[in-house]
Amino acid sequence: MRLTLVCLMKPVLHGYFRSSCSWRVRIAFALKGIEYDQVAVNLIKDGGQQLTEQYKTLNPMQQVPAVEIDDITLSQSLAVIQYIDETRPGPRLLPADPKARAQVRMISDLIASGIQPLQNLSVLQKIGVEKLPWAQHFINRGFQALEPILKQTAGKYCVGDEISMADICLIPQVYNAERFKVDVGQYPTIKRLNETLAEIEAFKLSHPSRQPDTPADLQA
Amino acid sequence: MRLTLVCLMKPVLHGYFRSSCSWRVRIAFALKGIEYDQVAVNLIKDGGQQLTEQYKTLNPMQQVPAVEIDDITLSQSLAVIQYIDETRPGPRLLPADPKARAQVRMISDLIASGIQPLQNLSVLQKIGVEKLPWAQHFINRGFQALEPILKQTAGKYCVGDEISMADICLIPQVYNAERFKVDVGQYPTIKRLNETLAEIEAFKLSHPSRQPDTPADLQA
Repeated sequence: MRLTLVCLMKPVLHGYFRSSCSWRVRIAFALKGIEYDQVAVNLIKDGGQQLTEQYKTLNPMQQVPAVEIDDITLSQSLAVIQYIDETRPGPRLLPADPKARAQVRMISDLIASGIQPLQNLSVLQKIGVEKLPWAQHFINRGFQALEPILKQTAGKYCVGDEISMADICLIPQVYNAERFKVDVGQYPTIKRLNETLAEIEAFKLSHPSRQPDTPADLQA
Repeated sequence: MRLTLVCLMKPVLHGYFRSSCSWRVRIAFALKGIEYDQVAVNLIKDGGQQLTEQYKTLNPMQQVPAVEIDDITLSQSLAVIQYIDETRPGPRLLPADPKARAQVRMISDLIASGIQPLQNLSVLQKIGVEKLPWAQHFINRGFQALEPILKQTAGKYCVGDEISMADICLIPQVYNAERFKVDVGQYPTIKRLNETLAEIEAFKLSHPSRQPDTPADLQA
């Protein structure tokens, strides 16, 4: 008799309930129906738990998320999401058509490179000007660009009628916009997509108000 | 007799000689051996030609690059590069193995989301603190994270022994680092990879010193 030992390790997400990049990964896991463990990295407590030497080995950028999956450790949420998509069954997170894939990546990168890094905690801590107008400026600049793009690409969701990585990026960015008191009503397509996506179970379950590390007063 | 008219339109890159994101796309075209036309968008002249209403229709973020290819217009350099890779023959710009692909995307995104947006012209114009130390801070933070990652992933190039999108992102970021007087010698793996890549024809041809819009005094 031959004994085969199959070791199925669940992926581990090191993240923070309110981090929009952690939320992106939580949505991807939820859409794919992948079970995972969460380790909380509190960005505020103890001067920021992402700054410890121990965490630095997981993500040398000292940001969340970091994901241990299979036998590698990945950071950068879009790299993680595309790795999950390429190695796991379940609904596609990027469409099959190359042009639609390019549009999904364009929208995702517009948010992940063009908006989020500029309203990130570590940047807001360093700027010499007022934080709220700074964050509003860069979110509005991004949304002013995103709105006409989405008007062209969107069907029911950001690109056509299938949920994709673009939607995964959009909803946490709208959440950030609301935190920084940006009037999302100025962007009718963004607003409509956000309302549609907010009703979907994978987006609800992964919401910052429903995580193991969500403080009691912020729980839904 | 049936006449088939094949219309082969060359892609059009709207870019700027010194933009690191435009340079990324030029490297990808050169590695793939794709002929393309360039339209110069001068980010300085006339208060910034990327701010015109005409250019805004190509890239609503009013940044370079924008690429007209096949019958779509794309912005966001990594979306463009992956579209080229998925639709054109020639050397792969992302490896076949999913883990190696994830590492390529992680390195690319660390640069494209974690470094470049923070030392971008439009951000430097807006910060209330001194520009040079700000840019140096974010480039050094990024390179301090990139160095240990590359130490693990690199062979001859950023990930193993094949040139990839990670290399395409690295060399323009090192060029920016040098412009901002960052001592790249602190990062031996980055320095070694940059020196190796700088010898390759596709990286040389696409260099900011050799573009149609390079001013005479900056030409190589």
